[in-house]
Amino acid sequence: MKNFADRLLAQMKKMESPIVMGLDPLLSYIPEGILSKYQKETPEIAAGEAIYEFNCLLMDSVEGVIPAIKPQLAYYEMYGLSGLRAFSRTVAYAKKKDFLVIADGKRNDIGSTAEAYAAAFLGETRWSESSSTAVFDADALTVNAYLGIDGIQPFLDVCREKGKGIFILVRTSNPSAGDLQDVLLENKRPLYEHMAEKVHTWGLDLVGESGFSSVGAVVGATWPQQASTLRKIMPHALVLVPGYGAQGGSADSAAKNFDENGEGAIVNASRSLMCAYKKREDLKPMDFQKATFEEAVRMKKDLNDGIARMLGK
Amino acid sequence: MKNFADRLLAQMKKMESPIVMGLDPLLSYIPEGILSKYQKETPEIAAGEAIYEFNCLLMDSVEGVIPAIKPQLAYYEMYGLSGLRAFSRTVAYAKKKDFLVIADGKRNDIGSTAEAYAAAFLGETRWSESSSTAVFDADALTVNAYLGIDGIQPFLDVCREKGKGIFILVRTSNPSAGDLQDVLLENKRPLYEHMAEKVHTWGLDLVGESGFSSVGAVVGATWPQQASTLRKIMPHALVLVPGYGAQGGSADSAAKNFDENGEGAIVNASRSLMCAYKKREDLKPMDFQKATFEEAVRMKKDLNDGIARMLGK
Repeated sequence: MKNFADRLLAQMKKMESPIVMGLDPLLSYIPEGILSKYQKETPEIAAGEAIYEFNCLLMDSVEGVIPAIKPQLAYYEMYGLSGLRAFSRTVAYAKKKDFLVIADGKRNDIGSTAEAYAAAFLGETRWSESSSTAVFDADALTVNAYLGIDGIQPFLDVCREKGKGIFILVRTSNPSAGDLQDVLLENKRPLYEHMAEKVHTWGLDLVGESGFSSVGAVVGATWPQQASTLRKIMPHALVLVPGYGAQGGSADSAAKNFDENGEGAIVNASRSLMCAYKKREDLKPMDFQKATFEEAVRMKKDLNDGIARMLGK
Repeated sequence: MKNFADRLLAQMKKMESPIVMGLDPLLSYIPEGILSKYQKETPEIAAGEAIYEFNCLLMDSVEGVIPAIKPQLAYYEMYGLSGLRAFSRTVAYAKKKDFLVIADGKRNDIGSTAEAYAAAFLGETRWSESSSTAVFDADALTVNAYLGIDGIQPFLDVCREKGKGIFILVRTSNPSAGDLQDVLLENKRPLYEHMAEKVHTWGLDLVGESGFSSVGAVVGATWPQQASTLRKIMPHALVLVPGYGAQGGSADSAAKNFDENGEGAIVNASRSLMCAYKKREDLKPMDFQKATFEEAVRMKKDLNDGIARMLGK
């Protein structure tokens, strides 16, 4: 099975695009023209259908421009079983359209339970002695490593076996990230650097032909200084970069997560792509696909320019 | 709305039982007599139905002996949408039978996303301007605080508004818990103590009449020494104690999480209750309810004796 990091980097290279589209489907993001189609259904069914339709149309609009999507599980769970069905169908649609899927669940638990999460999102579920199938079947999952290696090992096993990936939280994009992550250790270095060293070590066995590992890291675009240091501590880690756009991170900040070849990171944008239409007074809401496409093209240039400046080109 | 800690402590006192039954439904735990009833269904439907039936019968068997259940979300997710439907039905059945429900999801994210998790598991989902309803509606949720206070605040808000609770991971029960949690800080104290201080501070506004807060902590029964220290750092925290029984923690170890009145903690047992029948050569598998009931009664005595020894009684 081909290494996840190699697969994602190949897609990014082909499209010359370091972007992953976050699909965080708040109902308030969805144009009325979609919501109203389902108003005869129960609120729960209507939510699931509208989310799925909006997601598909968003993916259609950026096909060939954006290599991957990142559904945020919290929003699907918020809409109950119907939301989770929309998640499942979104993953299936994405795969049909050749988007890689990073499920953003920040899952974590002790070893035996982490095995269940690994099976649910990346591997296969065993139904009986003789039958097992993939359930949600994403390409990668975000993971929180506060429980240490035995909570991570089951994910490493499935990554190796199935060509899947994980992104471990190192330095998150939110204002209070530092409450725990910046705490100084005995050696005067912050906790997030210790976490980064673990990510580096745990990922060494999963480095692909690209030189990058299927064990990646999450490092917010809101912390450019930390990003430069972390890039050095984890030379093989593929970095998932949230916080660009709506959360305030700039292209220059995001660029600090890329290496000296301008590779090795993928930048997330959720609201700024999903709600691009809301900033376009020249377009009707139902022209949201045009707005999202144009915003994706603008972002691609913005980020590639940021990377070029970082490389001194 | 009545404070969660007060509600849980009242139930525990009424039953003189410091036990929460973990419902981690691996299909291999379920007696063949239940599984075979659904063999005409698809594997996914069959799994969901069998899990729900087993859960209900387990709850029936310990009614009045055990005050709360703790479904582990990983296992329900592993069985896909059907598994998640079983989770949802299990929560509803538990509430009908007066069990409190601690959803074990170890959820975590940035503030806006944590809001969605809080809505999904503890609060209400907004379907439109005028309608919102509870989706999974557990009484409490386990939470990972690596992202700091802005990832926790949305949970605190819903705890206050709806009488719900959270349990923040402090020192987990697994062998590699120390990889991150034991790292020594600048002040020579381990990270888990820093986390415990946060739990204490964040929970002060949610202390109920019982003197305990709806912001609790997870501290494994496998670490008795740490438990004694943590009990002092978090005098108001209700402690959820995994690791007793199958994971190797003893009643004496678990007891270290209780305070000088023998209060303030609840001990989880999953496999040892769910699979009690597997250790009973005198019983048929379908007599599992008797086995689980008797194991619950034995545990209750074992834990209460451990607490009494800890108090020097």
